[in-house]
Amino acid sequence: MTIKLNTDEHSKQSNISKIKSFRKQNRPTSELVDGVLKGDISALAMAITIIESRIDKHRVPSQEIIAKCLPHSGKSIRIGITGVPGVGKSTFIESFGSTLTSMGKKVAVLAVDPTSSISKGSILGDKTRMQELVRDPNAFIRPSPAGSSLGGVARKTRETILLCEAAGYNIILIETVGVGQSETAVHGMVDFFLLLKLAGAGDELQGIKRGIVEMADIIVINKADGENLKQAKLAKVEFSRALHLYPPKKNGWIPKVLSCSASENTGIVEIWEVIQAFVEESKNNDHFFSARKEQNKYWLLQSIDDLLKQEFYQNEKVKSLLVRMTKEVVEGKISPFTAAEELLKLSKTP
Amino acid sequence: MTIKLNTDEHSKQSNISKIKSFRKQNRPTSELVDGVLKGDISALAMAITIIESRIDKHRVPSQEIIAKCLPHSGKSIRIGITGVPGVGKSTFIESFGSTLTSMGKKVAVLAVDPTSSISKGSILGDKTRMQELVRDPNAFIRPSPAGSSLGGVARKTRETILLCEAAGYNIILIETVGVGQSETAVHGMVDFFLLLKLAGAGDELQGIKRGIVEMADIIVINKADGENLKQAKLAKVEFSRALHLYPPKKNGWIPKVLSCSASENTGIVEIWEVIQAFVEESKNNDHFFSARKEQNKYWLLQSIDDLLKQEFYQNEKVKSLLVRMTKEVVEGKISPFTAAEELLKLSKTP
Repeated sequence: MTIKLNTDEHSKQSNISKIKSFRKQNRPTSELVDGVLKGDISALAMAITIIESRIDKHRVPSQEIIAKCLPHSGKSIRIGITGVPGVGKSTFIESFGSTLTSMGKKVAVLAVDPTSSISKGSILGDKTRMQELVRDPNAFIRPSPAGSSLGGVARKTRETILLCEAAGYNIILIETVGVGQSETAVHGMVDFFLLLKLAGAGDELQGIKRGIVEMADIIVINKADGENLKQAKLAKVEFSRALHLYPPKKNGWIPKVLSCSASENTGIVEIWEVIQAFVEESKNNDHFFSARKEQNKYWLLQSIDDLLKQEFYQNEKVKSLLVRMTKEVVEGKISPFTAAEELLKLSKTP
Repeated sequence: MTIKLNTDEHSKQSNISKIKSFRKQNRPTSELVDGVLKGDISALAMAITIIESRIDKHRVPSQEIIAKCLPHSGKSIRIGITGVPGVGKSTFIESFGSTLTSMGKKVAVLAVDPTSSISKGSILGDKTRMQELVRDPNAFIRPSPAGSSLGGVARKTRETILLCEAAGYNIILIETVGVGQSETAVHGMVDFFLLLKLAGAGDELQGIKRGIVEMADIIVINKADGENLKQAKLAKVEFSRALHLYPPKKNGWIPKVLSCSASENTGIVEIWEVIQAFVEESKNNDHFFSARKEQNKYWLLQSIDDLLKQEFYQNEKVKSLLVRMTKEVVEGKISPFTAAEELLKLSKTP
């Protein structure tokens, strides 16, 4: 890239501002990474923006930033938080996050929301719901990256975790709205998975997708206050009993059931104690780090898969035939396997 | 293909046998398909062998057979049967299958067992465990196709279902041993999913992989006879209660819990009645056929995925770098996404 400078004396001032602007836009990645490693929030925010960018010129800097941050990453507890809308996720994160910062922790709050976009705003976009945490110098809140594909959103969030860790955040909270497969994606990038629930009459698991309860390391019944208190206690007993019906987890951890009131800040410290016990136990039996290794491997295979599919489905020849082929397959006019073979052959014709 | 014939008189006999052998080996697919459509068991067996074959010259005939059978397929009830080893799957299938043939049904029994191979023998290979059904003219038993990849085995089983249906079998039973993801694969090719269980002290769900109970349309507690009878009744109550904790299925079906004794042939007719009720209900609310359409679509996407991966992982350049890359990813030395991109780039270099 070159800057076009004017040669006459009168344009000197204009030239200087052009150079300044050029330097700012092209801030070398080493400088940016230095900022991240010092815990500079604006450097961290800018680095994340580059990583989230889809612009071609950000591709190389993005890889450089990640490569440089990678050796400084990993020293956090990564916690996934899920629950149906209305369960009080934002209030919980506000309360839980503030409790942690008051203990001297540095807390980063991220989100995985494949439905979010800049225009629609994401779950964390409405920061007014986390007024206390937003002003907290030891908390860093970043909304979900925009993107229509879960794969893309998950990738960016995974890389943002690394950057936040390099910037010294030792607790990473990752919120998910439970759209599509986002819980599975978040479960695959965290050390501990927290499911928020409400006590309520009738089917306690209503509204929770199949498989989510099985992923939980803790079920927290929120809004256990005032008139809800009694119901929350009952729900706690019921969930504890229900969890016994699930097969044990391979790391040996027995999921816990707790209740709390995020709005009244009760039961929050107890949740943190459970998480600390989990971390201690799983570091002792070496499951903590072996699980992270498994996750890295999973993401490698997942990324290969994503890239292969992306390329295939963006192929113009495939695009033009896929709709008709899918229709014929659905109607049972052609075998799915024959159709797949034909499409693959087509994708390779020049 | 041509046959080399000898011209001297003395070799006439030898020529005739050459021609006969040629005709037999190269039996035209139209002739074979005619046999299948007439319900000729040897034609069906030969057609399946061609479909299961990995030999290149069987590729085109295989596609022809499927294309010709496809319009005659679909008119069966496809039932998946799973359960841990020792639960009595073979005995159950023997009893259930015989009950169905005695009602005038034609029953095909298939299996999905990715660990099976010709040398190792598959779950259904030991036909001695199904002595009655083996001799039943209205039953057709076919062991799992050999193959190390679940994708390959699943594909062949899916296509075998079509052929069996074209041959007039109106009940297809598909057994799975529960290795790896085979239940999910079988669940994705059947109309109804049956989970066999045993009553036992302690954790009732022990040994069943996470997510399997959620897939079941019916849980059948087997060996409900003699001294086990009381325990089976208790297990039935416990499972019925546990199933209420799961969110409802999108087709509106409420999974049932029954008990039976396959060895004493008790409770078997009741299971068939539940399946009939399921089929009636899901045909009435149109879920039966829309689920099959969804399955077809799923298998198209799945096959594309399989083929893309197969090609990628068989690439020699990828093979030579993958082990090192995986190691670096697992150890956190390189980002999974960067590694994936590098491998993909490599796979495309000539």
